[in-house]
Amino acid sequence: MLPEDPSSRSSAAMKQILEQTPAWLSGGGEHADVVLSSRVRLARNIAGFRFVGRADVQERRDVFNLVRKNLTKAGIVSEDLGSGGACWLDVSAIDQYERDALSERQCISRQHAKGHKTSANEGPDPRAVIVQTPSETVTIMVNEEDHLRLRAVRPGLMLREALEEINAVDDQVESVLEYAFSSRFGYLTACPTNVGTGVRVSVMMHLPALRVLGEIDRVKRAASDMSLALRGFWGEGSEADGDFYQLSNQTTLGKSEELILTELAGTIVPKVIEYERRAREKLMTQRREFTEDLIYRALGVLTHARRIAADEAMSKLSEVRLGVTLGLLNGPDVATVNRLLLMVQQAHLQHAVGRVLDPSERKAARATLLRQTLS
Amino acid sequence: MLPEDPSSRSSAAMKQILEQTPAWLSGGGEHADVVLSSRVRLARNIAGFRFVGRADVQERRDVFNLVRKNLTKAGIVSEDLGSGGACWLDVSAIDQYERDALSERQCISRQHAKGHKTSANEGPDPRAVIVQTPSETVTIMVNEEDHLRLRAVRPGLMLREALEEINAVDDQVESVLEYAFSSRFGYLTACPTNVGTGVRVSVMMHLPALRVLGEIDRVKRAASDMSLALRGFWGEGSEADGDFYQLSNQTTLGKSEELILTELAGTIVPKVIEYERRAREKLMTQRREFTEDLIYRALGVLTHARRIAADEAMSKLSEVRLGVTLGLLNGPDVATVNRLLLMVQQAHLQHAVGRVLDPSERKAARATLLRQTLS
Repeated sequence: MLPEDPSSRSSAAMKQILEQTPAWLSGGGEHADVVLSSRVRLARNIAGFRFVGRADVQERRDVFNLVRKNLTKAGIVSEDLGSGGACWLDVSAIDQYERDALSERQCISRQHAKGHKTSANEGPDPRAVIVQTPSETVTIMVNEEDHLRLRAVRPGLMLREALEEINAVDDQVESVLEYAFSSRFGYLTACPTNVGTGVRVSVMMHLPALRVLGEIDRVKRAASDMSLALRGFWGEGSEADGDFYQLSNQTTLGKSEELILTELAGTIVPKVIEYERRAREKLMTQRREFTEDLIYRALGVLTHARRIAADEAMSKLSEVRLGVTLGLLNGPDVATVNRLLLMVQQAHLQHAVGRVLDPSERKAARATLLRQTLS
Repeated sequence: MLPEDPSSRSSAAMKQILEQTPAWLSGGGEHADVVLSSRVRLARNIAGFRFVGRADVQERRDVFNLVRKNLTKAGIVSEDLGSGGACWLDVSAIDQYERDALSERQCISRQHAKGHKTSANEGPDPRAVIVQTPSETVTIMVNEEDHLRLRAVRPGLMLREALEEINAVDDQVESVLEYAFSSRFGYLTACPTNVGTGVRVSVMMHLPALRVLGEIDRVKRAASDMSLALRGFWGEGSEADGDFYQLSNQTTLGKSEELILTELAGTIVPKVIEYERRAREKLMTQRREFTEDLIYRALGVLTHARRIAADEAMSKLSEVRLGVTLGLLNGPDVATVNRLLLMVQQAHLQHAVGRVLDPSERKAARATLLRQTLS
């Protein structure tokens, strides 16, 4: 019997991942009408190695190998994915579209999909991601900005659960790898904003009613007043395709995880949920006809278009999602709309069709997928 | 038995008219994919009376009474509409929305719906229209710009048939009314552009492919080169809601009916039909996906909107009509789309709902009608 080809194992794992919908898109959790998901990530580095941005390829490869060996030995990374578990994906070994798909699923950052520049004789940038399958509730990026980026994600508003989960994973990892830690600063990280607990807490919110009523600036001001970052989620730049926004803390130094979590989950997130709910109520009571028209037209576009760009698809799916949560549409359910938010994106479309598509083909494939799912 | 109330008879005739679809919207006739209808109208005045614009109310009332009496005696106007025939509608006696509906059906002009200004003690402007029921192929306006405006309309490109029909009606009318006629100039009319034969020949064309491809200016230039008028049809001003254009001669003096008809039907109309057909072929061969998307999106809007303005409805119906003629849509048929072009208009909507609607209610009623008919 021939030895197993590791790249074919990785490819099988990718295939398995792409067939699933991540648990955070299930439509469940607290306040799921407004909150899509809750994330907590920790930035960690391994003692005795330079930060990724400073290390040469060989040193990054050493980190890659050390992490793989130790986490596999400790059972954190599973050798066999048959019964579920966390799989090791060598990001430089998988196809370009698979890397992009992992980025679309928020398993890795765009930067990690691209990798650091290496010269021709150095070979590809040694980097990996560990993905908990099939839920994708936990991921660990290896050699992104920090040696390790641990992340837990849950559907709805479940920050505490996400924090508890990632802390447990962090403890497991720390039992087999020595972290770079300063008794004065806390965990050391490549970027000063992450020094300390290395924690970033973020909530993905769906705020269509505030956008429709032109009140999204209230949220932006409230976030800014609290030194929180409000970014478009899935959208390029600051504009949010489909009205999805990510609200997160900007700095970690000098703040306990508890404080960060309380600031976000205890004050601003409930306030934004309240804003959005009031806006939705206003749409239902004061602008009912306008709202029904908006939502049904969005469904009309999604069920009739023969070509549709990603941003338009996201925007119309957002409006349909609003309609579902308002009880104005009989179908589809929130989980289906959430799944489509992922499926209409470039790499997922290419995976569904089974080949690389040019922009025009993508528009057609996206429209077909939407029609088949929603009609 | 009480004597019949003439206004209730008029109202019954109006009701009957509004329940029908005019024959020119049947979708039949030559070149019906591009040509909606062919019209010929004659401007005539009665000898011994001043032109309408110069006459006082009493003189206009005298014309009104004379025309009614003589045409009824000659059997041109039917007393009994049970078996079809031409009915006399006292335009000042019917409801405002019925007048507007007659204008939407192209039975009367907007000016005729409004009437000439009269002072309070003069009573309403004496004016009428005779409508051939149920086909509406022939109409005669009484006391519009001229004492009589006789018009025949046919579906598709059937100008010669329309001319023959209106000439026959003209002969009938002339046998019981003496026309103002000059052996030097021909028939005398209120506006010098109509002097001579008093004929205006026009073809209503549906030119969506030329608009989509940005080539509508070619038609405008060709029309202008031949001193023909190209106007929006149903649209306000020069822009054509729904890509419907009316191509017609501008002057009549010194030209025989035959020459006018030949100029229009023999040269420019076939040329424009050819332009539009080539544009449609281009859409099908070179821009197939774009075209399918355009057409299905239009259908998506019409079958999903909860509120829709008249101009958007006309524009989307135009695209659906294009889709039907290109064979890209299974349903609806051209006759249904044509009927909707009429039914989505303000007065017809109000008739369908049975009461006066404010602009917001109209948008909702229009959307409901479209959904119910097309879904």
